[in-house]
Amino acid sequence: MSAPVTLTRYLDEQRQRVDQELERMLPPAETFPPSIHQAMRHSVFAGGKRLRPILCVEAGRLLGGQEEGLLRVGSALELVHTYSLIHDDLPALDNDDLRRGKPTCHRAFGEATAILAGDALLTLAFEVIAEPGICSAERQLRLIHELAHAIGTRHGMVAGQVMDMEATHQTVNTQVLEFIHSSKTGAFLCAAVRCGGIFANAQEADLARLSIYGQKIGLAFQIADDLLDVLGSSATLGKTAGKDDHLSKATYPAIHGIEESRRIASRLIEEACESLEPYGERAGRLREIAYFFIERAA
Amino acid sequence: MSAPVTLTRYLDEQRQRVDQELERMLPPAETFPPSIHQAMRHSVFAGGKRLRPILCVEAGRLLGGQEEGLLRVGSALELVHTYSLIHDDLPALDNDDLRRGKPTCHRAFGEATAILAGDALLTLAFEVIAEPGICSAERQLRLIHELAHAIGTRHGMVAGQVMDMEATHQTVNTQVLEFIHSSKTGAFLCAAVRCGGIFANAQEADLARLSIYGQKIGLAFQIADDLLDVLGSSATLGKTAGKDDHLSKATYPAIHGIEESRRIASRLIEEACESLEPYGERAGRLREIAYFFIERAA
Repeated sequence: MSAPVTLTRYLDEQRQRVDQELERMLPPAETFPPSIHQAMRHSVFAGGKRLRPILCVEAGRLLGGQEEGLLRVGSALELVHTYSLIHDDLPALDNDDLRRGKPTCHRAFGEATAILAGDALLTLAFEVIAEPGICSAERQLRLIHELAHAIGTRHGMVAGQVMDMEATHQTVNTQVLEFIHSSKTGAFLCAAVRCGGIFANAQEADLARLSIYGQKIGLAFQIADDLLDVLGSSATLGKTAGKDDHLSKATYPAIHGIEESRRIASRLIEEACESLEPYGERAGRLREIAYFFIERAA
Repeated sequence: MSAPVTLTRYLDEQRQRVDQELERMLPPAETFPPSIHQAMRHSVFAGGKRLRPILCVEAGRLLGGQEEGLLRVGSALELVHTYSLIHDDLPALDNDDLRRGKPTCHRAFGEATAILAGDALLTLAFEVIAEPGICSAERQLRLIHELAHAIGTRHGMVAGQVMDMEATHQTVNTQVLEFIHSSKTGAFLCAAVRCGGIFANAQEADLARLSIYGQKIGLAFQIADDLLDVLGSSATLGKTAGKDDHLSKATYPAIHGIEESRRIASRLIEEACESLEPYGERAGRLREIAYFFIERAA
């Protein structure tokens, strides 16, 4: 059996486990008031890759964490990811009609419900991680702090979204672009990996290695996404392709061109994997995942 | 010195302390990217009564909690309250131009920034309560869980907002109205009081009493707000008066009339204060606060 098949099967299995966990986590669609729970479920189950949960589980497993708890924490991160997509798609922000080939939340349920569904998913994520008994209270608290910081306004996800918005129709240099990407995508991806480590009660040295891995793959994935956007089509992406270009958004391909962007992404993945060298073969999955997710844009 | 003067002075002092704490809590306006931090500060410092922080501090003090930590937790609740106002005011929801006499966040900073500012305030609140050393990790975790549940979709604030939205232009009965109010305002107010108790490491019996107090005043304040909306004017309220009526929103005065609504609110306040009887004079402030905030609508 060749390596890629094994990885694909592994990713499928993990995705299914995450979906089962999310199914348990979210109130049933008929829970009163049903409209909000339907909207939350519509977006959570719109077919995501579950990259953040998988990274969290795998990083935690590498450092001896127990799978059940890791799956719970990782799935809570997916709620946060879905919140950010719902709000990003809103008419006032990216104004997207499609996400993963399905109508975006506000197209399916109206803008007001979409805003509240995003709010509710963010809130639920914190509620889930704060449930007693997931791991020690000290570590649960640290997970919450790590997550909140990574999606906040000081070099976190919201900072990146604001910068990205303000950079539209403006000429930005590489430095600004790197700030946008490292905040908008990098910080949260990095937190996903680190949360796995924190759950597993990792040493600071381990967390530092995971941070480097997370930051590097975060930036590489963003570049890969930008490349896909330039190269892809609506049909294969399930969203309006070329949209970033139309809005003259700041992207790597726009600044560096397609070939150089590919080279940068590849180098980032290599560096990410190098930071895991102390773990040898046990970090094999994290290496495979890193390469797998930029291959789409190769 | 008469009692009301003392209370007014007390409320002023508390409000100032909360404002100082919020000042420390929020990133300075010039923090990169400045637009989001300006928007967050615009709404947080738009002149709120700081009712939730004051209730949290006072309930916690009653049960022996230390003031500095209570102020921190209470002020984090005010961040959550501000998030809910910003999102509530958005064009897709209540579409309000004014809040406390000032332009609403989206009128001052645009819709996209307002959505993100609300998101960021909600996130920051959890980050603040998760900071190490506020109280024991177990209690901090419990505070986060309590808060998240109270503002969520299962009988929490977002459930109330959804119901309220869907009840507009519809005839609702008393039962539905009570569900809306107890979820939209009651659950969070109740959590503010309970968070004070949890911080102070209160017994379950104490928390149960605080819950009754919180639920009753929550409903009473909502009725008082509805009454003010019917009786008041834009000038004194700082928001568009009579708006709920225009949208034929579900309110107590609309169902029960003005006089009966006043009677219901008064009875609720009495019941709220009765639940604090075991504490005798020490609960004097909480009783005064309860009466003070419905007097505006008397």
